[in-house]
Amino acid sequence: MEYKQLDKITVIDYLKNITKVMDFFATDKIEAEEIGDGNLNFVYIVKSQEDPSKVLIVKQAVPYLRCVGEEFPLSRERMTYEIRALKKFYSIFPRFIPNIYHDSEDMSLVVMEFLDNHLIMRKGLMESVKYTSFSEHISTYMSAMLFYTSSLALSSSEKRELIDKFNGNTELCKLTEDLVFSFAFMEHETNDNENVKDNPLADKLFTDTEFKEKVLGLKYKFMAQSDALLHGDLHTGSIMINEDETYVIDPEFAFVGPFGFDIGALLANLVNNYIYHSIVTKDEEFREWLLKTIKEVLDKFGEKFLKFWSEHKNSALLVDDYLDDKTLENYKKKFVKNILRDSVGFAGCKMARRVFGVAGVEEIRGIKDTTLRYEAESLALRIARKFVIKYENIDSVNEIIEIIKAESAR
Amino acid sequence: MEYKQLDKITVIDYLKNITKVMDFFATDKIEAEEIGDGNLNFVYIVKSQEDPSKVLIVKQAVPYLRCVGEEFPLSRERMTYEIRALKKFYSIFPRFIPNIYHDSEDMSLVVMEFLDNHLIMRKGLMESVKYTSFSEHISTYMSAMLFYTSSLALSSSEKRELIDKFNGNTELCKLTEDLVFSFAFMEHETNDNENVKDNPLADKLFTDTEFKEKVLGLKYKFMAQSDALLHGDLHTGSIMINEDETYVIDPEFAFVGPFGFDIGALLANLVNNYIYHSIVTKDEEFREWLLKTIKEVLDKFGEKFLKFWSEHKNSALLVDDYLDDKTLENYKKKFVKNILRDSVGFAGCKMARRVFGVAGVEEIRGIKDTTLRYEAESLALRIARKFVIKYENIDSVNEIIEIIKAESAR
Repeated sequence: MEYKQLDKITVIDYLKNITKVMDFFATDKIEAEEIGDGNLNFVYIVKSQEDPSKVLIVKQAVPYLRCVGEEFPLSRERMTYEIRALKKFYSIFPRFIPNIYHDSEDMSLVVMEFLDNHLIMRKGLMESVKYTSFSEHISTYMSAMLFYTSSLALSSSEKRELIDKFNGNTELCKLTEDLVFSFAFMEHETNDNENVKDNPLADKLFTDTEFKEKVLGLKYKFMAQSDALLHGDLHTGSIMINEDETYVIDPEFAFVGPFGFDIGALLANLVNNYIYHSIVTKDEEFREWLLKTIKEVLDKFGEKFLKFWSEHKNSALLVDDYLDDKTLENYKKKFVKNILRDSVGFAGCKMARRVFGVAGVEEIRGIKDTTLRYEAESLALRIARKFVIKYENIDSVNEIIEIIKAESAR
Repeated sequence: MEYKQLDKITVIDYLKNITKVMDFFATDKIEAEEIGDGNLNFVYIVKSQEDPSKVLIVKQAVPYLRCVGEEFPLSRERMTYEIRALKKFYSIFPRFIPNIYHDSEDMSLVVMEFLDNHLIMRKGLMESVKYTSFSEHISTYMSAMLFYTSSLALSSSEKRELIDKFNGNTELCKLTEDLVFSFAFMEHETNDNENVKDNPLADKLFTDTEFKEKVLGLKYKFMAQSDALLHGDLHTGSIMINEDETYVIDPEFAFVGPFGFDIGALLANLVNNYIYHSIVTKDEEFREWLLKTIKEVLDKFGEKFLKFWSEHKNSALLVDDYLDDKTLENYKKKFVKNILRDSVGFAGCKMARRVFGVAGVEEIRGIKDTTLRYEAESLALRIARKFVIKYENIDSVNEIIEIIKAESAR
């Protein structure tokens, strides 16, 4: 089918030809409403008029950046990779991925389950909501997705097929290369220049050669280390959550990259939330819960990754009987420690880039009081710096927690 | 054109339809002779009957391993990657690549310049021929090919296009994964089991867990580090040489992999030759020349790689004005040191695998006297072990030379 941009009328005509969708509604009487909160895409809520509890989401990419307009072209093929990633992740661990009713790479369109009892995690965290199942869920999600799409699980040819499917996600990978690893640390038109102007923190960051040299090394890892299929943008805005369930959405940045990048993104966003509660709400109890959650997520990630590995004997990397069990255990532990180290490095880049770079986070850039915002920026940059300078020597999750606590106490 | 396996008659009919080839011969009277020294492919020498100085080489892959027979299937698509690599390398630095007159991925066939004044380098080295231009040539070849196909030179999308072109070379990459990094270090049917039997060196190697754990790390780098387009099998049998010219041939193993792998392959083969002259010919002067050559190759590689880098400002990695010159120089020097380190690690794997693995080298496995061969094997394994255990801490080319000398003196 040839690509055509839909609207709230034509999307209904389109859906009426899709048996699985119409079976779901069990009626012809459906209607669509556009919810305008997408930065990149058009998103429709489609409801049965007879039974308003029957709802699906339709997401269609357009060949430009929606929040800016048609004058900012961005190829709609990003939806191709989102569809492929959703399906791949669903095939590995369906529990954390919305159910897909229909997808079309030609139409850059996907029809998904509507998550009506779930909140964007960032919003919940800002309101001090403790998601007690979260560390259990997200550690399973990350360990399963990363392990089962890596050369530790796949055969050599399966790994290459996976790379084939995602290697073309050029535009969004380049966005990350530029925005996360370069522009946010130098004078650049894409930055929040209102804030950069006369800000001593910006001066300090942009001239911090020790930090920037390390960032360059991490950028190189991002570009050249093909470990596993990543979500590519795993912040708390890509997580829909409630007490009992956790869903990871919007994997349009998916590509085969370094293990630590998704974990680092999540870590960065949890720490940014910790900073918000340190400086703005001063909610001591929630801060404690956040630190505990960070520790649990990272500890459990390692344990579960190793557990999946222990259940999986042969792969591109490991030939049966190549190495005795004891040495192999040793190798695996070091391997997981290296993932943790890279995660800390990437988390540092991700935190620092949110301060002056093009896309801020609500927890920091959203602070209205300029004095408090400056404090939050300063703390974010101090933690980010420690992460980036020290990541290669991190030996335990506790050291990460200590960095966060020590800088926050200063 | 549909694939058809040619013979010495039909290859002539095929060539007669190719203008560029017939222009070269400037006559219809051409004849072909099959030279049977290919392990994998059919190779024809095609001559003008009127002017025997006019000669071209035709190389065609067949869908099996030629040296074993049709019962050992090996997809002929390997020629697709050889053709693509030859053309890519030619486009970067034509001087070291045979001129190509015609190629067809469909026919798995390439028509190339005949290198009649050149010898396979391994043969020359075994006869103590000093190729005085070699270190200059091969260091230019390696630095140019690796630099200009990496994210240090290419844009983000160019790098992804390159990966797209070579990612499908699954079969030959898997051969390397299995044969270079796994089977040669354990009991396996593909090994030279006549020699493995009752050989204390094999016992020692197969139970050397410290060594094998490091090899696993290097295997992982081979599989997951997408630095640059590699030749993939850069031993001295892939080099055609004389005093004045150096040609690199047979890049059928080409893929986007770690910088150090080609350099390591070459280093391993030069050291194997050094071992041959240490144990068999005892040609002191040639040994000295070999050590000097190894040092020159590695030193010049680093210098030239850095020189290419200094001439090339923007790339996927580097954005103009991101970092001051001094810090950038520092970063680049560390980057090149890491390439050197990985090269040493890969060289160790490559040397060790030649001892008991499926494909031996003439310098070691070809030694007729079993006592001398055992000595050579022992020395190769000692140097290989040092390379693999120490590679991450190598700081200079001199340390590599010292390892070779120290183990040879024992």
